[in-house]
Amino acid sequence: MKSGLSFLVAARQGEIVELEQLARSSELTNLLGQLIHKLQRERGASNVFLASGGVQFAEQRQQIMASSDVAIAHARDFFDRLDPQASFAGISRARLFSRIAYALHGLDALPGLRQRIAQQAIAAMDVVNAYVKLITSLLAVVFEAADSATDPDISRLLVAYFNFMQGKELAGQERAIGAVILGYGRSNAEQQQQLLNLIDGQERCLQTFRSFADQDTLSFWSTQESGPLTAELERLRRMVCTTHLAAKPQAPAPMDDLSVTWYDCCTRRIDGMRQIEDRLAEQLQTLCREKILRAKSELQAYNEILQTLSSQKATAEAEHANATHSTFSFFDDHQPRPPGEVTGSMAASYGPQMERAILEMMQEQAQRLQTMSDELNKAKAALHERKYVERAKGLLMTHRQLSEEAAYKMMRQMAMEQNRHLVDVAKSVLALESYLNTPAA
Amino acid sequence: MKSGLSFLVAARQGEIVELEQLARSSELTNLLGQLIHKLQRERGASNVFLASGGVQFAEQRQQIMASSDVAIAHARDFFDRLDPQASFAGISRARLFSRIAYALHGLDALPGLRQRIAQQAIAAMDVVNAYVKLITSLLAVVFEAADSATDPDISRLLVAYFNFMQGKELAGQERAIGAVILGYGRSNAEQQQQLLNLIDGQERCLQTFRSFADQDTLSFWSTQESGPLTAELERLRRMVCTTHLAAKPQAPAPMDDLSVTWYDCCTRRIDGMRQIEDRLAEQLQTLCREKILRAKSELQAYNEILQTLSSQKATAEAEHANATHSTFSFFDDHQPRPPGEVTGSMAASYGPQMERAILEMMQEQAQRLQTMSDELNKAKAALHERKYVERAKGLLMTHRQLSEEAAYKMMRQMAMEQNRHLVDVAKSVLALESYLNTPAA
Repeated sequence: MKSGLSFLVAARQGEIVELEQLARSSELTNLLGQLIHKLQRERGASNVFLASGGVQFAEQRQQIMASSDVAIAHARDFFDRLDPQASFAGISRARLFSRIAYALHGLDALPGLRQRIAQQAIAAMDVVNAYVKLITSLLAVVFEAADSATDPDISRLLVAYFNFMQGKELAGQERAIGAVILGYGRSNAEQQQQLLNLIDGQERCLQTFRSFADQDTLSFWSTQESGPLTAELERLRRMVCTTHLAAKPQAPAPMDDLSVTWYDCCTRRIDGMRQIEDRLAEQLQTLCREKILRAKSELQAYNEILQTLSSQKATAEAEHANATHSTFSFFDDHQPRPPGEVTGSMAASYGPQMERAILEMMQEQAQRLQTMSDELNKAKAALHERKYVERAKGLLMTHRQLSEEAAYKMMRQMAMEQNRHLVDVAKSVLALESYLNTPAA
Repeated sequence: MKSGLSFLVAARQGEIVELEQLARSSELTNLLGQLIHKLQRERGASNVFLASGGVQFAEQRQQIMASSDVAIAHARDFFDRLDPQASFAGISRARLFSRIAYALHGLDALPGLRQRIAQQAIAAMDVVNAYVKLITSLLAVVFEAADSATDPDISRLLVAYFNFMQGKELAGQERAIGAVILGYGRSNAEQQQQLLNLIDGQERCLQTFRSFADQDTLSFWSTQESGPLTAELERLRRMVCTTHLAAKPQAPAPMDDLSVTWYDCCTRRIDGMRQIEDRLAEQLQTLCREKILRAKSELQAYNEILQTLSSQKATAEAEHANATHSTFSFFDDHQPRPPGEVTGSMAASYGPQMERAILEMMQEQAQRLQTMSDELNKAKAALHERKYVERAKGLLMTHRQLSEEAAYKMMRQMAMEQNRHLVDVAKSVLALESYLNTPAA
């Protein structure tokens, strides 16, 4: 018959298995961060290549593609090592696998995309959108990995990490769309608005990142952001967003000075962001390692107590062979008792002090797990906020035939008027989903 | 190299393992429901036994204890069959184990409690409180089992089930405390208030039950509740709660007519509630069985498609041995295409139609999993609402030195004034936890 204590141990073991799983998820996040960075560069290079009619970046593009392929191989290798049959079932795992399925399908299609680019048989904006789609499918994998984290500290770090990755991807899209505007001189109000949305979106992601990252990473990041690069970027953003560029000839042409400056500036910023990601990945690994070590040493301590107790219990049972009496302190209200005092019914299996020690261990563990769950829920809520806003935006767009920008503005307006958070407005919108989707009688 | 499709299959497999796990959790819930019912009867019988100075229910108590022991043996047997090392790690699993540890510890202490009752060496209210504590520890196991459910339909049913069990336990406490009041004639304002709180608490639990149970169970329940038993109970409640009972002699005495009527009426109601629990348990088992069968047949369909595809792929690869081309439709915006049309880059590994079928399968799965998660979150929120209210109440009790009743009234007052749900007020209170816990400067 299993004792209560063996479940106390089992609970701890469960936490360790979970932490080991989280360490693997962190590794995956890191691999995908590297891969996404490569794909972002490939997207940028492909744009320059197309805009220049295949003159510029032809060689660089080959190199970047080769280095993307290495990152893809690493990611595929990781996926291959995942054992879908093994231990981790559950819907969050199912969601992860479902995202991986979709992302792998996207990676399968990458050679076809590259070929069209090589043949210059695809428009620049279509290239941007195709890479965005592929990278989004990879970020969805990271999201699920972050969402399945069950340790609040690790979860917080993953929330910071995911939001930073998302912000970096929006910065990558900004580089690409800016390059298209400058390269083709086809600036129009729509693309300039898209650029503004991307800048706005980055700010939102970075805000969440800032509220979940640790102090060290934050000061590293703010040093980067307060440097001359940001001033330069802001100057260029102003130029790209406000100047009415003279439409260039339709025929592709090499990048002019402004395009080169824009591309370089954005690239340096994105590479800087990649350094933050590296820091976050390292922190994540250290944190997982530390937590696993700590949990293992605590498990050892539990096991030792368990061993002591079972030998004591054996002795006690031998001494009171016919004892029908039992422990009672479970029912006491855990008021401190003078040491050595014996409970009324005598002959408690372990002795009253030891029994109270066990009860305290149990209550400590239950309390700790409860606190963990509460903190975890807070971190997860932040992870999902973006999703709520996005989905509510989509709902308004469909319902009122609004543009993305207009739907977003409308929600922000409501939030300001009602002095509520944007996410709460989004939730209210979603709460009315079935109502909004029902046509008026 | 694993294909995206194999992850699609793996995701499905993960869902099946999870469903099988849920079937086990449902079994556990059922076993604990039976055990709790026995312990509730044991509590009631013990009270009558004590109140009558060991004259009444001496034999019944022995019979009930024997039948409790059978139920305990079943539950222990289930716990023994749980493999703590195996598959299901995770913090929700750790929480479940931690609750089981505590409940087992409580069951270990039951013989000691029974002995004190047999010796009439414990006060009636202490007996009530001891059984309440034990049953609460078992309900906490049921809560965690319900909370770890990841299928929204099953989760909804478990939320209904758990709340019904909780309501039934409050009905059991009502029976016990009413018996103490009537038995000893020691009615005082405090105990009468406690009774009112228990009636109020039952109503809250049953309200949640009603919003999550299916139509059939609801009509079965409302038939029960609209019967003559309820009218009788309400009449008795009024008498117990409002009459100033003449204090009886301190010495225990057999139950008078009113006590017998009260005890019988409450017992018939509680036994009726047990029937509802049986219905819910049966539904739960049927639901799990159906879902597992459905998921398995869908998995089979996936596997067949997977097989067809890999043979098609092999053929395609043999035909285009040196093809560097690849699929592209991942990047298309999934606009319907005329059937038979071939994509630009030709030589797609599977053929464009098959590829689109895969994409649709992937999107369908991702969408389904997302919907499941959303619905699940809604059901879980209801499960946790009670906890929020309880914890907020505790916080106010500590902070303002309020009674339970006063703290609850205060929150209900705030909810009415602000036209908000009680749970939202509770969350607001909890949000101020650190503030409230900081002493004023």
